[in-house]
Amino acid sequence: MNKTQLISEIYKKKSLLCVGLDSDLEKIPPHLLKTDDPLFEFNKAVIDATKDFCVAYKPNIAFYESLGPKGWESLEKTMAYIPDNIFTIADAKRGDIGNTSKMYAKTFFEYFNFDAITVAPYMGIDSVEPFLEFENKWVILLGLTSNVGSADFQKLNLNNGNKLYQEVISTAQKWGNADNLMFVIGATHPELLREIRALASNYFFLVPGVGAQGGDLDSVIINGANESMGLLINSSREIIYAGSDMDFKEKINVKAKEAQLKMAKYF
Amino acid sequence: MNKTQLISEIYKKKSLLCVGLDSDLEKIPPHLLKTDDPLFEFNKAVIDATKDFCVAYKPNIAFYESLGPKGWESLEKTMAYIPDNIFTIADAKRGDIGNTSKMYAKTFFEYFNFDAITVAPYMGIDSVEPFLEFENKWVILLGLTSNVGSADFQKLNLNNGNKLYQEVISTAQKWGNADNLMFVIGATHPELLREIRALASNYFFLVPGVGAQGGDLDSVIINGANESMGLLINSSREIIYAGSDMDFKEKINVKAKEAQLKMAKYF
Repeated sequence: MNKTQLISEIYKKKSLLCVGLDSDLEKIPPHLLKTDDPLFEFNKAVIDATKDFCVAYKPNIAFYESLGPKGWESLEKTMAYIPDNIFTIADAKRGDIGNTSKMYAKTFFEYFNFDAITVAPYMGIDSVEPFLEFENKWVILLGLTSNVGSADFQKLNLNNGNKLYQEVISTAQKWGNADNLMFVIGATHPELLREIRALASNYFFLVPGVGAQGGDLDSVIINGANESMGLLINSSREIIYAGSDMDFKEKINVKAKEAQLKMAKYF
Repeated sequence: MNKTQLISEIYKKKSLLCVGLDSDLEKIPPHLLKTDDPLFEFNKAVIDATKDFCVAYKPNIAFYESLGPKGWESLEKTMAYIPDNIFTIADAKRGDIGNTSKMYAKTFFEYFNFDAITVAPYMGIDSVEPFLEFENKWVILLGLTSNVGSADFQKLNLNNGNKLYQEVISTAQKWGNADNLMFVIGATHPELLREIRALASNYFFLVPGVGAQGGDLDSVIINGANESMGLLINSSREIIYAGSDMDFKEKINVKAKEAQLKMAKYF
């Protein structure tokens, strides 16, 4: 999916919502465990209940990998079930030397047909570029993440006056552009969002950390939006685990609609 | 495998050799493509041909992932085939928020039973600690990698006088210790190995970049060894793709023996 198409979907639905498919056998409604493929059955229900209110899905690859080949199959079926007009993000945090990053790119862009993948920047240019070479596919590079550990290295001061995350966000714009590169910027740093937006004015930000991790939706939009919004705001646990009984699908539907309504007022 | 056992294997075999299983359907001997599981048949042959000369195997996870569920199965069979006295490293470069890193740890330490996993440091403490909580398992944290892109961020100067990779290597020693933490230090920086060894004197280093990437074996050992060696030196393509005909196994055997002999003179 290209940038124009993504923006068009966002305005059509008046939504910035990305639903994180952190689907975990220990947390899904217990009655699904009796089905042949509980993870897929759960994802199917989540997709049915949220697809009118969200513009992106973000399967967290760790949760599928942890089940071995069976988890991989659940992921394949999930990808096939997601409607074509919804943007898909492999939350994989990959990044390795060139020939290896190329393999990861093939896995997620070709085998699974994701639109985007999250990538870790530590290994630099040749770990990121192989992902940028695919047409109409996206790298979502870690900029300033939502977790406590973001203080350990990302916020370190460099001797050129930048913090490391600022350097990452600036340098990566020499490798990609606003049509194939986005940044992960955690909702847990609302005071920094405005400054980061100035660093990358026309780029999309994928914003995790609203909800379970404590970030505030309104301050993310107020400080982080650009003229075509430029935000995908992720919610995982708060939506997908809204219910655990037979009516879990209705509860998920209500939560997703609630989230979209909060976003709609900014359109 | 714990540190004492690993050191014991190293001295028994007079070898620091880690064989990288970057097994690629496009590069393995073509006659294997007719078998049911070419990747596993290839790995089996590589293991048979190298197990007397190496102390570790490092499957590059990207190469298995790229084949979907079938690649996952080849990896499972490969892990079952590796002898118990050989250290196993999942070269996965993972790292994410706590609950997700925990899932990755379960995948590689429990499901696949690897001894170690490579981890990217960018997301800080809570992305690394979940891996450190497993007994007799190891995190191999990216310090200074072997690729060109290591100059982009890893070598940046911080305003405290350290370079980023030095800060990573120092900080991580507050999270783990020499019994559950190693560092990736590329062979392509021989001039820095002595300085990095001083920063982490009793830690193991996993050293990629000898061979295809241009690093020199002797200078790695001379500058990087500590009193119990403290090095695992990886070679992937140079060994596993030594031959492509029916005699590929013999050619791999010769290459692995050659590598071990070069190392033996330092014992």
